Amino acid sequence: MACRILANAGLAEDILGHVSVRVGADRMLVRCRGPQEQGLLFTFDEDVRQVDLDGRGELEGWAVPNELPIHGEVLRARPEVDAVVHCHPPAVLVAGVEEVPLRPVFGAYNIPAARMALEGVPVYPRAVLVRRPELGRELVEAMGASTVCVMRGHGITTVGSGPHAVEQAVVRALTLDVLARVSVERARLGDRAADLTPEDVAELPDLGSSFNDLNIWRHHVARLRLSGLALD
Amino acid sequence: MACRILANAGLAEDILGHVSVRVGADRMLVRCRGPQEQGLLFTFDEDVRQVDLDGRGELEGWAVPNELPIHGEVLRARPEVDAVVHCHPPAVLVAGVEEVPLRPVFGAYNIPAARMALEGVPVYPRAVLVRRPELGRELVEAMGASTVCVMRGHGITTVGSGPHAVEQAVVRALTLDVLARVSVERARLGDRAADLTPEDVAELPDLGSSFNDLNIWRHHVARLRLSGLALD
Amino acid sequence: MACRILANAGLAEDILGHVSVRVGADRMLVRCRGPQEQGLLFTFDEDVRQVDLDGRGELEGWAVPNELPIHGEVLRARPEVDAVVHCHPPAVLVAGVEEVPLRPVFGAYNIPAARMALEGVPVYPRAVLVRRPELGRELVEAMGASTVCVMRGHGITTVGSGPHAVEQAVVRALTLDVLARVSVERARLGDRAADLTPEDVAELPDLGSSFNDLNIWRHHVARLRLSGLALD
Amino acid sequence: MACRILANAGLAEDILGHVSVRVGADRMLVRCRGPQEQGLLFTFDEDVRQVDLDGRGELEGWAVPNELPIHGEVLRARPEVDAVVHCHPPAVLVAGVEEVPLRPVFGAYNIPAARMALEGVPVYPRAVLVRRPELGRELVEAMGASTVCVMRGHGITTVGSGPHAVEQAVVRALTLDVLARVSVERARLGDRAADLTPEDVAELPDLGSSFNDLNIWRHHVARLRLSGLALD
Repeated sequence: MACRILANAGLAEDILGHVSVRVGADRMLVRCRGPQEQGLLFTFDEDVRQVDLDGRGELEGWAVPNELPIHGEVLRARPEVDAVVHCHPPAVLVAGVEEVPLRPVFGAYNIPAARMALEGVPVYPRAVLVRRPELGRELVEAMGASTVCVMRGHGITTVGSGPHAVEQAVVRALTLDVLARVSVERARLGDRAADLTPEDVAELPDLGSSFNDLNIWRHHVARLRLSGLALD
Repeated sequence: MACRILANAGLAEDILGHVSVRVGADRMLVRCRGPQEQGLLFTFDEDVRQVDLDGRGELEGWAVPNELPIHGEVLRARPEVDAVVHCHPPAVLVAGVEEVPLRPVFGAYNIPAARMALEGVPVYPRAVLVRRPELGRELVEAMGASTVCVMRGHGITTVGSGPHAVEQAVVRALTLDVLARVSVERARLGDRAADLTPEDVAELPDLGSSFNDLNIWRHHVARLRLSGLALD
Repeated sequence: MACRILANAGLAEDILGHVSVRVGADRMLVRCRGPQEQGLLFTFDEDVRQVDLDGRGELEGWAVPNELPIHGEVLRARPEVDAVVHCHPPAVLVAGVEEVPLRPVFGAYNIPAARMALEGVPVYPRAVLVRRPELGRELVEAMGASTVCVMRGHGITTVGSGPHAVEQAVVRALTLDVLARVSVERARLGDRAADLTPEDVAELPDLGSSFNDLNIWRHHVARLRLSGLALD
Repeated sequence: MACRILANAGLAEDILGHVSVRVGADRMLVRCRGPQEQGLLFTFDEDVRQVDLDGRGELEGWAVPNELPIHGEVLRARPEVDAVVHCHPPAVLVAGVEEVPLRPVFGAYNIPAARMALEGVPVYPRAVLVRRPELGRELVEAMGASTVCVMRGHGITTVGSGPHAVEQAVVRALTLDVLARVSVERARLGDRAADLTPEDVAELPDLGSSFNDLNIWRHHVARLRLSGLALD
């Protein structure tokens, strides 16, 4: 479902991207590719397989993502993380390679995106395919303690924690996409906007994960259903 | 229905925005968020609850918007207003923060939008979440006697009056969005267009609320039906 | 059907635009607005009424367009014209007010659009509502012998002749929209393209109305059917 | 099916474009136009006819494309080629006439597109209708040994080889479109991105035709099915 939401929201153009969720210290569920792979938008239950953090498990004809180390190394290095999203939003790609700054110039338009801009979004500067553990560890290092990371010339990685870790990681990906899209639009117009004032920042409360993550998640599930893409 | 139109027309990206309508000196119906909130596009009849201008009422598990003071303070301060719309059109956000002027350079393309540009659109300069009455009163003051207001870094507020107050407020939101979208497109091309001449302005009659508001309202209802989003 | 095609192709945003076809020296069928008007995309057979060139006829609750003189004066002044289209393509609006030139820089991409650019597109410079015959005559004069005209700050008027006059006028509107959209995209990138060389122009034959108009018409009818908007 | 995928992905606006596949040294199947032609998106099995490389065959009311020499001359000159795609992606048109460079600035975002940029995309500089064999031979010469070619002011030609030649040629067209779209977006923002470093290029493996072509093909077939456009 998470994969379908990302694809339906335009964050994955065709077949690239995956989501994982921790199910133990060294185990995760991860979206794999089957013999009849049709892309993220057409993910089915059986595409989600359980493997260890190095990608070993009973795959029955499915293949783990080439970039499994993104999931394995993030989950290994950060015990507080329970879910990892990797995808390729076009606006983030363009903002990344053209070095469009993701500045905090709006507020209540989208408070999570404003807070993300205030906190700063780390950048992993290499456009490589993260198919080896050492490249995954480079990504982990670039990401630091952040919940999101731009992979320049490539895509994004976001994480979530707790009982709604998948919803949180997916909504963070959607939020980073909003921030990038607005920033690209602004850059086309000159990027003249001033940063938020401290007085206005003080009036942008964190409305909480239940408000931000679960409501937005349900909204996207409803959009999938409207498009004939619900799994139930 | 008003909420679904706004969302279907792209004026609200996911869960943010609300509509209210006066049902007495101190009472209003307002779009609230329920326990299974799915966003504006998926508004149901039971999401509309009656409360007083401070948001008190029998809510049965629904919650009034965080920004209820937008509705309460506008309706309190302006007795001629019967409906209030608040939403977050992306083009208005970008035009607002990049200070793209909303100039009157077109005419019969969209007469209500041309007249809106001629009259001028006030700007509330703060990007704050309007969750306290004093912030609502700041907004009321910035808006003055206008029927529309840009909230910079945030969104818009529009109002309507009379028996078709909701239709009027919704169509004003759609009209402001058209004006912002054209202005942003023009700004990308250099913003070289001259303002309308007085001779041409004289040939742009007000075709009346029945023509402008009700026809456009029915058009958007028909679009919702086409998309499988009608409530009947 | 013509109205639905124009709206489905994005040449009319909501309720504005109309099509007429000559049925005698002083008679025409014209798309009128009924008591339950829903916009061009939702045009029904009964919205098409027969009137004289001044808009008089048995209307039974329908109203002729405010801009009936566009149709009446063009059909009166040009006996070779059998159909008239008026609509508001957003790209033409923006190109018109920002004075983006519609230059012949592409060829086989779209030969009718290339030939339209080579022949030049006249501009009626006033943004007025053409609701009086004298304004219609101004438009006729600006249009000259051309089959298309940009109405700056307003929209376009196109005409067709012969047994497939409506198809021809509609496809000319679609073609002018392609030319404007490409020109706007080019202008954003600097408008550096060179005009076509005479050698290349010589290799761009007119493929004829049957190829250009009827095939494209059938394509758009098929798109309407796909969208659930066919009338049969 | 290939034609429908191209049209559904926005690479052909209405009726222009065609696909061919070799079925012998001097025979090919090619998408023709029938008496009820409705455009690429609405291609039916009977629109595919077998002809020789000069377009002669039993056509039964269908007509070969005006630009049959694109297919005939490419298949004649290059025995390793088994399928040819010709279409008109808008982003490639704009990039071509405005001379937007297709530079290798991204990596794992889309490895085939990155490799296409690294190898370079040849340009056929004439905007002519390729309706004579000598023009087809000019195109073949400009294309050289490449699998893709930009036809400036016109469109693109791509080829494929082997048992999945059609899938390969179609995916190469989709890949060239991605490269052009990203390049146009970047050009609007200043085209400041640096080329990939050799170290990063070394980490962008060719994942093979099965991964790239067949998975993407199945994805687009699934999208057609979702849109009600599958042929089965």
